[in-house]
Amino acid sequence: MKIDDLDTPALLCDLDVLEANLKGMAMHCHDLGIALRPHTKTHKVPEIAQWQMQLGAIGICCQKLGEAEAMVAAGLDDVLILYNIVGRIKVERLLRLVRQATVTVACDSEDTALEISEQAESEGVKVRAVVELDTGGRRCGVQSPQAALKLAQMISQSPGLEFQGVMTYPSRHAAKSFLQETLSLLDRSGLCTSIISGGGTGAEEVSREIGCNEHRSGSYAFEGRTRIQGSHQLRPERNPIRLLCTVVSTPTRERVIIDGGQKTFTSYPPRPYGRIIEYPDAEIYGMSVEHGHVNVSECSHRFHVGEHLSVIPLHAGMTTNLHDTMVAVRGETVEAIWRIAGRGRVQ
Amino acid sequence: MKIDDLDTPALLCDLDVLEANLKGMAMHCHDLGIALRPHTKTHKVPEIAQWQMQLGAIGICCQKLGEAEAMVAAGLDDVLILYNIVGRIKVERLLRLVRQATVTVACDSEDTALEISEQAESEGVKVRAVVELDTGGRRCGVQSPQAALKLAQMISQSPGLEFQGVMTYPSRHAAKSFLQETLSLLDRSGLCTSIISGGGTGAEEVSREIGCNEHRSGSYAFEGRTRIQGSHQLRPERNPIRLLCTVVSTPTRERVIIDGGQKTFTSYPPRPYGRIIEYPDAEIYGMSVEHGHVNVSECSHRFHVGEHLSVIPLHAGMTTNLHDTMVAVRGETVEAIWRIAGRGRVQ
Repeated sequence: MKIDDLDTPALLCDLDVLEANLKGMAMHCHDLGIALRPHTKTHKVPEIAQWQMQLGAIGICCQKLGEAEAMVAAGLDDVLILYNIVGRIKVERLLRLVRQATVTVACDSEDTALEISEQAESEGVKVRAVVELDTGGRRCGVQSPQAALKLAQMISQSPGLEFQGVMTYPSRHAAKSFLQETLSLLDRSGLCTSIISGGGTGAEEVSREIGCNEHRSGSYAFEGRTRIQGSHQLRPERNPIRLLCTVVSTPTRERVIIDGGQKTFTSYPPRPYGRIIEYPDAEIYGMSVEHGHVNVSECSHRFHVGEHLSVIPLHAGMTTNLHDTMVAVRGETVEAIWRIAGRGRVQ
Repeated sequence: MKIDDLDTPALLCDLDVLEANLKGMAMHCHDLGIALRPHTKTHKVPEIAQWQMQLGAIGICCQKLGEAEAMVAAGLDDVLILYNIVGRIKVERLLRLVRQATVTVACDSEDTALEISEQAESEGVKVRAVVELDTGGRRCGVQSPQAALKLAQMISQSPGLEFQGVMTYPSRHAAKSFLQETLSLLDRSGLCTSIISGGGTGAEEVSREIGCNEHRSGSYAFEGRTRIQGSHQLRPERNPIRLLCTVVSTPTRERVIIDGGQKTFTSYPPRPYGRIIEYPDAEIYGMSVEHGHVNVSECSHRFHVGEHLSVIPLHAGMTTNLHDTMVAVRGETVEAIWRIAGRGRVQ
């Protein structure tokens, strides 16, 4: 099947570009001497995660338990869940997952650790846990090296838990003293720290410099080794994700309407939302729920109803989260249709 | 089952509030003497559409063919698709749908009309069509009453089409002359206009005043008879949609993290994203992909990990589009779990 045989809008992934991005980051981390743990929240596609593993990743990480379940169901066997797992139903699901794969969870409070430990103990399993540090990201995480030590000690003494190490996000130089002091306290307390995990695409070297032994990155699959900051940076040789759209209306000489809007591209507003590969001078200046509004006044091309356009979305990860399938293409040929298995797994 | 037995985040719909909104708009349109055609893009749930029909709606409208397919599959039998249906695959799907229900499509160009007519004729069916007018919305639509007449004549002479009337969006007073001139031209040409469709929640009276005989509204199900403009307008007795979330971290006295972020609430940024029913003084000041960041410095309540919070999202329609199911509740009791059948039907 060829791309032009597809109904639209369709979420495409250019395999040549994806492959270059995956290999580029794998090589970069290899050269730096830091282990790579890809974040699957960006793509949510088990086939891409497996490809990342084949290229040398030590495991994957997921932001939600539901996403981890989708990945383990597809055969991924080492998952770090970077999220406090809270509540009886979630812990039950976590324990089912722990029986199937090497699963490690983040904790930042004794309440969270205690709940998991008690249920795990009653079911006779052990859950691997890392302590999340708030080294300046101001989201979750313990607030001091002393608090990290206290929670690590509590975890290591909990019958249902196994202390594994620490994680933080994002990796930056200012985090070094917090992290190093924590590692020093843990070491002096005789706690073995096998995971020291940093994260953030583009911060691989920082992770190594502040003392991490693994780095988490998600966006690199779709954006390359640094984050995309604006639509001027979108290039077909760098960004594998594109929305194949159809021109559905040409109401005026200046305006063209395509069949993708906020529910296809995401409602995140920085215009121009994406870049039309075939006509870089065309600007997607607005989006309603199901229509993309394109200013074509700078284009010499006369657009016609039925024409296909390939749009690189500005927010590839958010866009992917709106679709159930991703069409893997090489050149003009459809090679596979992947299920975005992690999509909608919000719980 | 009770609400507190649910895993989180869960998308809830309060049936008492929904019912009041549905009945309120039905009565409003009845009193105005204009037919109501609910837009299902807001909720995408067949059960809600059926409820709207039971309350007197003359039919529904959908923004995408995929959404219309989901509604017809669930038994809805009068659907206006407000979208140019373009491309061989889509027209084939449209023709399948036309055989199952009373389906009317919008057109704004001869190209679109011709493609549908040719395929319809070759399959021996007729497709009902209305002409879309751009009366100032600057999206799709013909640009003048003369262009509307020309397209209407072309449709009425096409063997695979049946001319039904006109539609525009949004309804406003400034659209009156365009609409009236169009109707006058159509009348003088002997074309029978059975559908004159306006739209936009809150513009029901305007639709009648400018000469429409039916009004399309979607948001009223989730927002009441006027649109919500900011989170200060969100009230549990007005807004039926809420995200049941869990507090997963209380890293500081001022900050609480809940288990819903941009992929649960949508990334549309106007803060504070939503309103926490139980603690109106708590402000959702930021969202990362899977975390909601809440400022609780103004609350006397001490939040604890595991606590449930009910958040009315600012963008209920966009939020609904991220979820596969909607939990219908009355009071604290779960009455049904509805499939959001139109979600993901982007094509």
